[in-house]
Amino acid sequence: MIYIGVDLGGTNIAVGLVDENGKILLKGSTPTLVERGPEPIIRDMGKLSLELLEKGGYSVDDVAAIGVGVPGVTNPETGIISFCTNLGWHNVPLVEILSQVIDKPIYVENDATVAALAESVAGVSKGVKNSIFLTLGTGVGGGIIIDGKIYSGTHHVGSELGHMTVNVEGRPCTCGGIGCWEQYSSATALIRMGREAAEEAPDCLIAKMVGGDLDKIEAKTVIDAAREKDPVAVKVYDKYIYYLAMGIVALINAFDPEVFAIGGGVSKAGDFLIEPLREKVKEYVFYKDLPYGRIELAALGNDAGIIGAAMLGK
Amino acid sequence: MIYIGVDLGGTNIAVGLVDENGKILLKGSTPTLVERGPEPIIRDMGKLSLELLEKGGYSVDDVAAIGVGVPGVTNPETGIISFCTNLGWHNVPLVEILSQVIDKPIYVENDATVAALAESVAGVSKGVKNSIFLTLGTGVGGGIIIDGKIYSGTHHVGSELGHMTVNVEGRPCTCGGIGCWEQYSSATALIRMGREAAEEAPDCLIAKMVGGDLDKIEAKTVIDAAREKDPVAVKVYDKYIYYLAMGIVALINAFDPEVFAIGGGVSKAGDFLIEPLREKVKEYVFYKDLPYGRIELAALGNDAGIIGAAMLGK
Repeated sequence: MIYIGVDLGGTNIAVGLVDENGKILLKGSTPTLVERGPEPIIRDMGKLSLELLEKGGYSVDDVAAIGVGVPGVTNPETGIISFCTNLGWHNVPLVEILSQVIDKPIYVENDATVAALAESVAGVSKGVKNSIFLTLGTGVGGGIIIDGKIYSGTHHVGSELGHMTVNVEGRPCTCGGIGCWEQYSSATALIRMGREAAEEAPDCLIAKMVGGDLDKIEAKTVIDAAREKDPVAVKVYDKYIYYLAMGIVALINAFDPEVFAIGGGVSKAGDFLIEPLREKVKEYVFYKDLPYGRIELAALGNDAGIIGAAMLGK
Repeated sequence: MIYIGVDLGGTNIAVGLVDENGKILLKGSTPTLVERGPEPIIRDMGKLSLELLEKGGYSVDDVAAIGVGVPGVTNPETGIISFCTNLGWHNVPLVEILSQVIDKPIYVENDATVAALAESVAGVSKGVKNSIFLTLGTGVGGGIIIDGKIYSGTHHVGSELGHMTVNVEGRPCTCGGIGCWEQYSSATALIRMGREAAEEAPDCLIAKMVGGDLDKIEAKTVIDAAREKDPVAVKVYDKYIYYLAMGIVALINAFDPEVFAIGGGVSKAGDFLIEPLREKVKEYVFYKDLPYGRIELAALGNDAGIIGAAMLGK
């Protein structure tokens, strides 16, 4: 049997045929075109799935289940997407619409949660009971696996780890909270901190790398300048690592997972991110003499969305 | 069958015989006398248990299991107490020692975790799958119940909710972290904030209530002065409620439990604590239109320690 995984993003709908071990057999994508609204987008998930099946020489009978990861809050019990802020969706009956195109068991989940499942089935958290996936991108996304299963809370509003308060006296967040972790540890936060530093020190390497056009600063700009040991960039990056570490310390003291899998744009910094992060966590964790969760780079990259969605039906 | 619950504190060892529904049949206590060291203390747990059995007309054969809640980090798999800072214990083989006095299945757990179990079996979280217990005392203790079972993490160092970072730019904590929640939301924190405010405003009601001796300020002093609408006390208490709310918001966004059970000394303020706390959480929670966990006063008070410990063996 094969499993279909759908990764719904703001730009593309990615679909893959996945085997029972989480290996992608065939994949494809089509533009989301958000402005169309939910119904044609959801129908396209189904059409692309059928096209891939034909291309791979499979029939609908070979499909065990379909899973869809969406960038928002879902209700896996009703199959309804409660909120998808970036797509402007609210109370969309995704499972109902998609089942009109392919009549198979359909599962929905939040995209970071789905990526956590993927890493747990076929990635860096494979074989581990309790793990946390963090994606450092526009925001900070989180997925929680407890006892090998997705944990998204009682009302499916949990595992929004980017919205844990880490600074009660800090920055207001788009969610209405104060001092949410993603205000300090997302790629967006790193860019903001880099820009602020470059405004104060216009001769720093960060500013030079974008030819003085500070709006062009990316997370990679700050990271590359820090690699070059530019003092301004090093200071910004150290602060970023500190903020990231303190959220992970909070999660160790609360959840105590076996593995943290770190993904998303900022994780492309690789060991230059992970090594100082491990050091900083060690400095602040509660029980320094007892074992605590390993901090690792996520293994599956962009494929985590497809693989994890497919594994929802397993 | 009956269950024996032992609640080990710095002052007293409390023991109770408990039925399968979490009802205390008989209880007693004996001074801990910390300076004796672990072995006589643990033997006293056994002796007091045997005395209670005799007093109640039970035999050892009626006992299904014994559970012990300790103020520290335990390893339920090995029965060893890893750390008990207040008692000065380190790597104490509690189960081994206690089983020399009573040869029954013996379970150990952290005391806040045990209280969470008690509230989940016989208290305010009864019948609920996912709940969090918080105790607001010298520190902030936490216990987590997921799917009706204790969750203390992979390495048993989790559910230290008082050591979640809520202020990355904040106060150093005794645990080696920075800005831990208990630095802002414990009774100790409320006392500190009350004293600092009274130092700045020596005419305030807080100062008057202790006759100017600010070392005599208790959590109750600040709460009582806030009830009397003393502006200085109201400001301190509002701040305290805000800090407490923000940690709960973090836990809603991460764990999304169905119930928060609030216990410990500060919870004696009753509705004067819970009502403004609910209001403040509502103001800052992420998904305001979706249901989230109820915030309730814990129901079992000091008995939670005995009941929860007893229920470890159920």
